[in-house]
Amino acid sequence: MHSYTETLDSFETFFAAHEFPSQPKKLYEPCSYLLRMGGKRIRPVLCLMSHELFAELNENVWHTATAIELFHNFTLMHDDIMDKAPLRRGFATVHEKYDLPTAILSGDVMSIFSYVHLNKINTEYIHSVMELFNRTAIEICEGQQMDMDFESENFVSLAEYMKMITLKTSVLIGASMKLGAMLGGATDGCSDILYQFGKSMGLAFQMKDDYLDAFGDSSKTGKQIGGDILSNKKTFLLSKAFEIANSTQREALLQLLQRNDEAKVADTLSYFEKLHIKELLEQEIQAYTNRAYELLEKVPVISKRKVHLNDLAKMLLNRES
Amino acid sequence: MHSYTETLDSFETFFAAHEFPSQPKKLYEPCSYLLRMGGKRIRPVLCLMSHELFAELNENVWHTATAIELFHNFTLMHDDIMDKAPLRRGFATVHEKYDLPTAILSGDVMSIFSYVHLNKINTEYIHSVMELFNRTAIEICEGQQMDMDFESENFVSLAEYMKMITLKTSVLIGASMKLGAMLGGATDGCSDILYQFGKSMGLAFQMKDDYLDAFGDSSKTGKQIGGDILSNKKTFLLSKAFEIANSTQREALLQLLQRNDEAKVADTLSYFEKLHIKELLEQEIQAYTNRAYELLEKVPVISKRKVHLNDLAKMLLNRES
Repeated sequence: MHSYTETLDSFETFFAAHEFPSQPKKLYEPCSYLLRMGGKRIRPVLCLMSHELFAELNENVWHTATAIELFHNFTLMHDDIMDKAPLRRGFATVHEKYDLPTAILSGDVMSIFSYVHLNKINTEYIHSVMELFNRTAIEICEGQQMDMDFESENFVSLAEYMKMITLKTSVLIGASMKLGAMLGGATDGCSDILYQFGKSMGLAFQMKDDYLDAFGDSSKTGKQIGGDILSNKKTFLLSKAFEIANSTQREALLQLLQRNDEAKVADTLSYFEKLHIKELLEQEIQAYTNRAYELLEKVPVISKRKVHLNDLAKMLLNRES
Repeated sequence: MHSYTETLDSFETFFAAHEFPSQPKKLYEPCSYLLRMGGKRIRPVLCLMSHELFAELNENVWHTATAIELFHNFTLMHDDIMDKAPLRRGFATVHEKYDLPTAILSGDVMSIFSYVHLNKINTEYIHSVMELFNRTAIEICEGQQMDMDFESENFVSLAEYMKMITLKTSVLIGASMKLGAMLGGATDGCSDILYQFGKSMGLAFQMKDDYLDAFGDSSKTGKQIGGDILSNKKTFLLSKAFEIANSTQREALLQLLQRNDEAKVADTLSYFEKLHIKELLEQEIQAYTNRAYELLEKVPVISKRKVHLNDLAKMLLNRES
């Protein structure tokens, strides 16, 4: 049993040993560049820690964790193009530093390398791992598509919004945990609980993102407050506001979306206050957080084995940045 | 044993039964749009016909052929973005008809669907099929990168050019045949021969492309003669010309590359004539063609079983459009 930081260290060592070929340089250098930006490696670490609930770490789970992290980075590289993002973790994104064709092709080859690692899994597990991996990969694309579709819509229902963040973010966290558990020999029922745990945690995590954008402390988040509001991003806040607003209030919200002046953020926030959106979001985050802890409680291994996972969940769910 | 057209018909039926989910519409509609443009389905058909040299068609090979065709179309969708191509088979390319993010994401999801099909292969074969499939997929990306790198180079050696077309085009034709053979129970040695056969045929096919662009009959190819010359595309012709030119001739060739006037094509063609490039290319195509037939000859099954494959090779190698 290892803590988050211990597992992270071991993963970084294993992951660094995965080297891309040296040529063609313009294909592989951007892959290494993105991977070197770091990140918390939450998904592979959750996969490994979930595995350790049931068994000692082995080659199967190391390769699966690596495949997950490579695939995640592939989606980041392509999402950054689609979202026209200039920066990631303070560094120029791949399409900015290199160019568009490079970001497309380097992303493509990185996704194939995930499957190179998956193919190193024992025959006993390969079909079930590939099945969940593929299903999740497809769902991530579907979530990204929904997110893009939302850009041209004024109104996104809360149900649609929740579906989008489930697909775009939460299923991969759920799948990471489930894959770890499956490879650790957990029963179907048990690995399903870990899937649900990861998914609930992922949803709470994502909603916290929306929360921090509007109500966070910019000295902690390092971001300007209200970035989502300025860009009319479809968030929990906006969908919830539309859901509970009466027709006059809806009209007012639609008018706020049309605005581009300096007071837009402040006026939207005061509208959210009027509708108690902050409290409603806090309740929702708490509900998913509680559900996550309840699910972890249900996993049929002794509590001592869950301590580190519980700590990691706390770290992820109590973040203020 | 079935002919090309019979196999093509059966494949189209199987392939049409693969349906993408209906939602999100903007994600999956472009996939179906590209697949409906048709094409000769050379790769899956070669996979199936190679399989039939050894065994009756079964689910393993149908899914593999499907994975190959989906992967091929994924590369087309992304290559068209990178090459800024407005048309494919007379239809607007996906990024033109829809938009850039759509062409990226729909391509991504199509590539994942290849792996969904590969995961339907029996456990006995999955590792070896995935290994060759992944290696080939990586090589295709490397070939595309080389091709893009060539754009900013004045001079590409013949060895580099041959490596690029090998990776970008020929290995997938070789792999399609080898995968079919492997799944048909062929020995390693035997399926390697079919790999080499496919690769040689792919190279001859690709060089014929260069040939037809410069020396073809535009009433048959449907393309303006000299398109590659106009756009300074690095072809066999140009690399061969640079290879055999003396320093004065090289200088003249470099000057031709700088030109953009109406006589550029004609002047370049007459320079090629001076260097006997047409004949040298014909010889090279013939050499790869001969090698392909010799390899097919070597496959240890009775000649009668090879008739249809021989006919298909003839069709591919003797094409004038």
